[in-house]
Amino acid sequence: MSVNLYDLAYTVENGIRQSAEYAELKKQYEAVMADESARTMFHNFRDIQLKLQEKQMTGQEITEEEVQQAQKTVALVQQHEMISNLMEAEQRMSVVLGDLNRIITKPLEDLYGTQG
Amino acid sequence: MSVNLYDLAYTVENGIRQSAEYAELKKQYEAVMADESARTMFHNFRDIQLKLQEKQMTGQEITEEEVQQAQKTVALVQQHEMISNLMEAEQRMSVVLGDLNRIITKPLEDLYGTQG
Ligand SMILES: [Ca+2]
Ligand SMILES: [Ca+2]
Repeated sequence: MSVNLYDLAYTVENGIRQSAEYAELKKQYEAVMADESARTMFHNFRDIQLKLQEKQMTGQEITEEEVQQAQKTVALVQQHEMISNLMEAEQRMSVVLGDLNRIITKPLEDLYGTQG
Repeated sequence: MSVNLYDLAYTVENGIRQSAEYAELKKQYEAVMADESARTMFHNFRDIQLKLQEKQMTGQEITEEEVQQAQKTVALVQQHEMISNLMEAEQRMSVVLGDLNRIITKPLEDLYGTQG
């Protein structure tokens, strides 16, 4: 990669760190981490999500009980003000990163018609 | 997203289009597309790859025959000078994009410890 492209990527990285979306995400994440019960609930939620994702990706069967447990946990964290604020901030940051990714992979898309 | 971050992403996009790696990829891709037999073999190879990927992602069983067919096709395209040149160019472009992606997602990694 030319030095120039790396430099540009680092400029984007800095831009992300200085963005309103990142500042908000950091604030909400740190709030959750500073609250013991919120932190525990958030980590529990993450663990369940990651476990289901892994099962899905490796083609393992997801039981009815696991689906119900996941739904209960989602309902629970959505009612928790701090965690729902964090999830909203994650969602907004994810939109930004998705936009950036779409822009940056455009050259490949142009070349291959759809996706590289 | 702040206008600034979008601008930076477009600058990266332009940088990619002007990179040596992209120019090489474009050249090799167009060479394969301009040669009927190479194009057919390349598309056939792509189709097999995508079909296996989809099966893997949806947890469907991949048969022994499919594995053997895929291995044969890889061996075949690797012996084809134009296609192997294209695959090498794809590999180099993919390293660049992987590097960019790692740099750009660093802020999230820093926040979440491992991955967002
Ligand atoms: Ca809220
Ligand atoms: Ca070669």
